Amino acid sequence: MNPNLPYPALRLRPKEDRRLRAGHPWIYSNEVDTRATPLTAIAPGSVCRVEDAGGAALGLAHVNPHTLLCGRMLSRDADERVDTAFYRRRLEQALTLRRSLFARPFYRLVHGEGDLLPGLVIDRYDDYLVIQPGSLGMEQDLALLQEALLTVLHPTGILIKGSGPARSLEGLAERVEVLHGHIPEILEVEENDCRFHFSPRTGQKTGWFYDHRANRARLRPLARGRRVLDLFSYLGAFAIPLAQAGATAVTAVDASASALALLQDNAALNQIGTPIRTVQGDAFDIIRSLRDHGESFDLIILDPPAFIKSRKDLHEGSIAYRRINDLAMRLLSPGGLLFTASCSHHLSREMLLQQIAFGAQRGDFQILGEGGQDMDHPIHPAVPESAYLKGFLLRRSSPGETGDSPDSTD
Amino acid sequence: MNPNLPYPALRLRPKEDRRLRAGHPWIYSNEVDTRATPLTAIAPGSVCRVEDAGGAALGLAHVNPHTLLCGRMLSRDADERVDTAFYRRRLEQALTLRRSLFARPFYRLVHGEGDLLPGLVIDRYDDYLVIQPGSLGMEQDLALLQEALLTVLHPTGILIKGSGPARSLEGLAERVEVLHGHIPEILEVEENDCRFHFSPRTGQKTGWFYDHRANRARLRPLARGRRVLDLFSYLGAFAIPLAQAGATAVTAVDASASALALLQDNAALNQIGTPIRTVQGDAFDIIRSLRDHGESFDLIILDPPAFIKSRKDLHEGSIAYRRINDLAMRLLSPGGLLFTASCSHHLSREMLLQQIAFGAQRGDFQILGEGGQDMDHPIHPAVPESAYLKGFLLRRSSPGETGDSPDSTD
Repeated sequence: MNPNLPYPALRLRPKEDRRLRAGHPWIYSNEVDTRATPLTAIAPGSVCRVEDAGGAALGLAHVNPHTLLCGRMLSRDADERVDTAFYRRRLEQALTLRRSLFARPFYRLVHGEGDLLPGLVIDRYDDYLVIQPGSLGMEQDLALLQEALLTVLHPTGILIKGSGPARSLEGLAERVEVLHGHIPEILEVEENDCRFHFSPRTGQKTGWFYDHRANRARLRPLARGRRVLDLFSYLGAFAIPLAQAGATAVTAVDASASALALLQDNAALNQIGTPIRTVQGDAFDIIRSLRDHGESFDLIILDPPAFIKSRKDLHEGSIAYRRINDLAMRLLSPGGLLFTASCSHHLSREMLLQQIAFGAQRGDFQILGEGGQDMDHPIHPAVPESAYLKGFLLRRSSPGETGDSPDSTD
Repeated sequence: MNPNLPYPALRLRPKEDRRLRAGHPWIYSNEVDTRATPLTAIAPGSVCRVEDAGGAALGLAHVNPHTLLCGRMLSRDADERVDTAFYRRRLEQALTLRRSLFARPFYRLVHGEGDLLPGLVIDRYDDYLVIQPGSLGMEQDLALLQEALLTVLHPTGILIKGSGPARSLEGLAERVEVLHGHIPEILEVEENDCRFHFSPRTGQKTGWFYDHRANRARLRPLARGRRVLDLFSYLGAFAIPLAQAGATAVTAVDASASALALLQDNAALNQIGTPIRTVQGDAFDIIRSLRDHGESFDLIILDPPAFIKSRKDLHEGSIAYRRINDLAMRLLSPGGLLFTASCSHHLSREMLLQQIAFGAQRGDFQILGEGGQDMDHPIHPAVPESAYLKGFLLRRSSPGETGDSPDSTD
């Protein structure tokens, strides 16, 4: 659009400005005064000037008139322009934070609302960037964003990894495309003094999960002398540093044979001496089978994919969390540790704890600690859902501690 | 009592066994079937055999008939004896956990319910132990406990530090007494590669707060080049390691002149080159004064004492948290970090976050991370209040990020 023209207005109904004024970045379509500013007149994905019922400006938002969540605040300054310079300023701020946190250029560079860039995720792998645009507005601003990224970071390659349920809500098709430069089939990431190969095109999300970095680091000192079971291991981001830290045996379970093949490559890449046993298949089935074979473990990692993809899955998904936690706990040796996590936005920390406590009843477990997403995944204070990753470290008591055995009711 | 006699019964009313069976360790006086087992007939502080309405045994509990929270479960095995061997087994389990976590003998050895020893806190300072008995039952079992501690740990000295509101609820007087051996006026504790002197007799609680150990460690890499403000500094457990980690200037604020004097001694003990400015007085007043003098800081620690001592203080205390967080945020430089904590049992994580978010509105803050109590303070899965320590790391955005300044409404 002509940079000198004002942005079209999006007028809110009376009192619907209150949540925005309290810092929340989202506008729902039923909050819009559609008589004053019909949503049908707004070009999908465009930037609008958001106004309260009295016409006072609240800022700028990306607007998609076809979605319930129709507006995402980009700026609280209605006089700003959402141009390359805007994205450059946001990226520079995001980069400043990461540079203050990490010595090496491997991190989530942009975490949506948490970095005041709603609908955008960018993971950095040294000179390569993988972008997940999750809103129509961000998808349409990719050219501006690309220009800003080239100025700020001079990347060798930028990959668009357009996938996931957020895109289909926004009416966006799946797409995996190189936006700039070139992207090798296999990229390398450094984390917790290890190196890992992964596939940005065919792997999950951007190909890697930085969110558990700090949790993995905190578990390392606890691995020595323990037999480790890594459920939903993916490429070994838990398994390999734990093996390196002195675990006596490591079993990695994943549904994907190709992920487990990469995990073994990664073990070799890091010259891991401890043999890592990989088991491909459904985690629920494999836990039962391990139990039937009388196996037990001293440290179990339980980091499943989101069992709850949308609010309607809440009940069924919660039961799945309860079941798998209960199953995993039964594989723990006395004094054994379970790190259990959930990345479901819809499952709160309290709800996860409730599902865990169901299996951890009768005082035969202690909670030693908690761990959420690492600091390159900042949380927006007004959006509790942006704290999507929850994790708890549990310890099974020894039989003498409780007076009864956790197995006795089985 | 005669070790061959059965423990007296405490019979619960119908259905009042359900919470206990789900793992909760507390019995309230209105749950007791006082016709079957009159509370008046139970010797205060004694061990009882807890039964459901049908007479089935649920375990053993310390009972204080004069308190609302009248029973605390010690064991789920009603045939166990609560004797020296019982305490020895519990202590050995607690010690096994700590030894697996820490290389040096400085930690909370027993954390009440979290270690299946309700009403008991023991902090270990190498060869010295400081005990806080918080229930009448534990107070009366001190001789058994002492014998068990001598067998398991061979301490040079054991101090009873009987203080705090829990004791007065239980009808226990304040007392500070050496139970065994000798205890110097000043003890030394090691934490985060620093050494600290503290007074177990006159200091707060057992004299030291191990609970923030991991949070202090996590802040260290963020201190370099930053101007640090440590509010409610006590003996410098945050200030000194942050100075050592490269903070350019450190200001420590505390109401206690003697705490600040010890803090300066501790700075000298650790050969801290960065000068530490200490300011004695009320933190609220001092924050305002610092602001009036135009001072700002790049990393602020806000770890106040519990503003909410009992449920009736909830409203007023919550407002105090809101006010002090709001005040502290106004001292932050752009890009500055605030680590803000609450140790109030009655203030949930969500409630604290709400008070913080009030000041952190308009998207001008990010939450980078969370940190609760360290792993030597295990949480009982059925007692959410045992997760008493909550902490959040916030970052103030730079003005360019939000389009308005956090100061603009001031």
